[in-house]
Amino acid sequence: MHDLAKKIIEKDVRALARGISFLENDHPDKLSILKDLHAEGKGAHIIGITGSPGAGKSSLVNRFIQYLRSNGLTVGIVAVDPTSPFSGGALLGDRVRMAEHFTDPGVFIRSMGTRGSLGGLARTTKETVRMMDAYGFDVILVETVGVGQSELDIMKVADTTAVVLNPGSGDVVQVFKAGIMEIADLFIINKADLPGVSKLMTEIEGMLDLVKHDADYRPPIAQTISTQKKGIEDVWGFARKHLQYLKDTGEGDRKKTRILQDEVIEVVHYELMKMIERRQQDGDWRGQIERREIDPYTVASNILSELDF
Amino acid sequence: MHDLAKKIIEKDVRALARGISFLENDHPDKLSILKDLHAEGKGAHIIGITGSPGAGKSSLVNRFIQYLRSNGLTVGIVAVDPTSPFSGGALLGDRVRMAEHFTDPGVFIRSMGTRGSLGGLARTTKETVRMMDAYGFDVILVETVGVGQSELDIMKVADTTAVVLNPGSGDVVQVFKAGIMEIADLFIINKADLPGVSKLMTEIEGMLDLVKHDADYRPPIAQTISTQKKGIEDVWGFARKHLQYLKDTGEGDRKKTRILQDEVIEVVHYELMKMIERRQQDGDWRGQIERREIDPYTVASNILSELDF
Repeated sequence: MHDLAKKIIEKDVRALARGISFLENDHPDKLSILKDLHAEGKGAHIIGITGSPGAGKSSLVNRFIQYLRSNGLTVGIVAVDPTSPFSGGALLGDRVRMAEHFTDPGVFIRSMGTRGSLGGLARTTKETVRMMDAYGFDVILVETVGVGQSELDIMKVADTTAVVLNPGSGDVVQVFKAGIMEIADLFIINKADLPGVSKLMTEIEGMLDLVKHDADYRPPIAQTISTQKKGIEDVWGFARKHLQYLKDTGEGDRKKTRILQDEVIEVVHYELMKMIERRQQDGDWRGQIERREIDPYTVASNILSELDF
Repeated sequence: MHDLAKKIIEKDVRALARGISFLENDHPDKLSILKDLHAEGKGAHIIGITGSPGAGKSSLVNRFIQYLRSNGLTVGIVAVDPTSPFSGGALLGDRVRMAEHFTDPGVFIRSMGTRGSLGGLARTTKETVRMMDAYGFDVILVETVGVGQSELDIMKVADTTAVVLNPGSGDVVQVFKAGIMEIADLFIINKADLPGVSKLMTEIEGMLDLVKHDADYRPPIAQTISTQKKGIEDVWGFARKHLQYLKDTGEGDRKKTRILQDEVIEVVHYELMKMIERRQQDGDWRGQIERREIDPYTVASNILSELDF
């Protein structure tokens, strides 16, 4: 077994931090560590929390962490912020939060921005969740900003996906358009002291009528006021009920299977793209394209025919 | 030369429509047609128009089409709507628009929703633009909803990217976070009869100060009221100035080169993923994963080592 994998299983938090850096930086030992850790998953309850930037997600997650800790549960958090692929960007909010929980060994927060290529963020997020599960947190929270396609991909790793909305925000339509409605297992109306809660409830219920769900499960709606710590216990209660539903129906196992199968494709895809990038150094097709001597489709055909598989 | 390619160059609009369907459905002749058309690009001015759902983009684009037509220019439009990958979704707004321009042979509108896999939409959009350029429209408009990563990818195909914002919407921060600021060549404040225009102008200018731009080019800001046809000529004027800047500095050529080089990678990537999907039918690794007999990283390693390149 890889030394780092061994240390992670033994709950060495510095090894965990280092392991996640391996994932982010695509270290050569990455796959071998993930292989070693695969059988070591402790079965954490993985909860995805998504919602638009202004929805008060960070403070909600913060309250949720406090709540879980006060119930004696350990928590790993992956805060995913697909900010500008150009500017990089520091995740100030998460740094503030990290400072708050800094001295608590039962909380581990890791922020992730967009790095590298297509699909890279979703892949690294999932691998990080695997690693945290092998380490052994009771609950793993995956927090994402926004409602784009990449968030949908990221959310696939969660057992339970919670969507945070605000009264009067008009977010429901956007959430629906983004396909979030179909993956939501639980809705959270945050800032429930603002006017428009009952209208938002009606909108959510109306949208839920439009999309297909399992006959036995209809996503519940929690109301929270995170500044006043209100409603957090409902979020947890609903999440546990959903997990129970997954267990009772076998849907949880089927979901895990799909996730694992998808991971095969993602890993293969990513490694292939790296190989192709390396290949590009050979030959002068970039120069030929620059001089307009050849078209991209011919180059692509040539590369593909060389691969011969 | 492929028969369909020949007909497209000869301005057969039904051949164009059919060709685009070939792209969408990933027809076996697709690459060969694209190869034939590559050298036939007429150098249309490709203008990307992006902005959040409520920004009045559709009516703005409609006015813009009317304006271009009244100036004797032909217009191809690709309306990209990455709606739910689950629900599919009809693009009602575009159907209404199509009806409006139905009898005008100088306007061709094609709507695209999310179909197929990762990156597929951006790829098909770019290929459609290539095809429309070979057909010979003077201007090609690429309209996208939202500000996600896939929109960023799509916008790379444009010579000039316009970002539509509304006064009082608070969109600027989201646009900035999504990395749109760095690709914007031109801002359009639509609904400029609403209060808050000068505040929005200040916000945009402030954001522009934060991001890197070419020293010689700072994106201008147009103000439009599309319901009153106001300001549309400014949009066109700014777009032409930007194109001139691209020509004068050689930046346009460099951009085209990058786009073509990226297309190689995208095509190779897509074709490889198709091959891997086909491969999956062989072997029982999906079953093995379902029975938890093997981990995804081992399967991925096995597939990769088989490829041997």
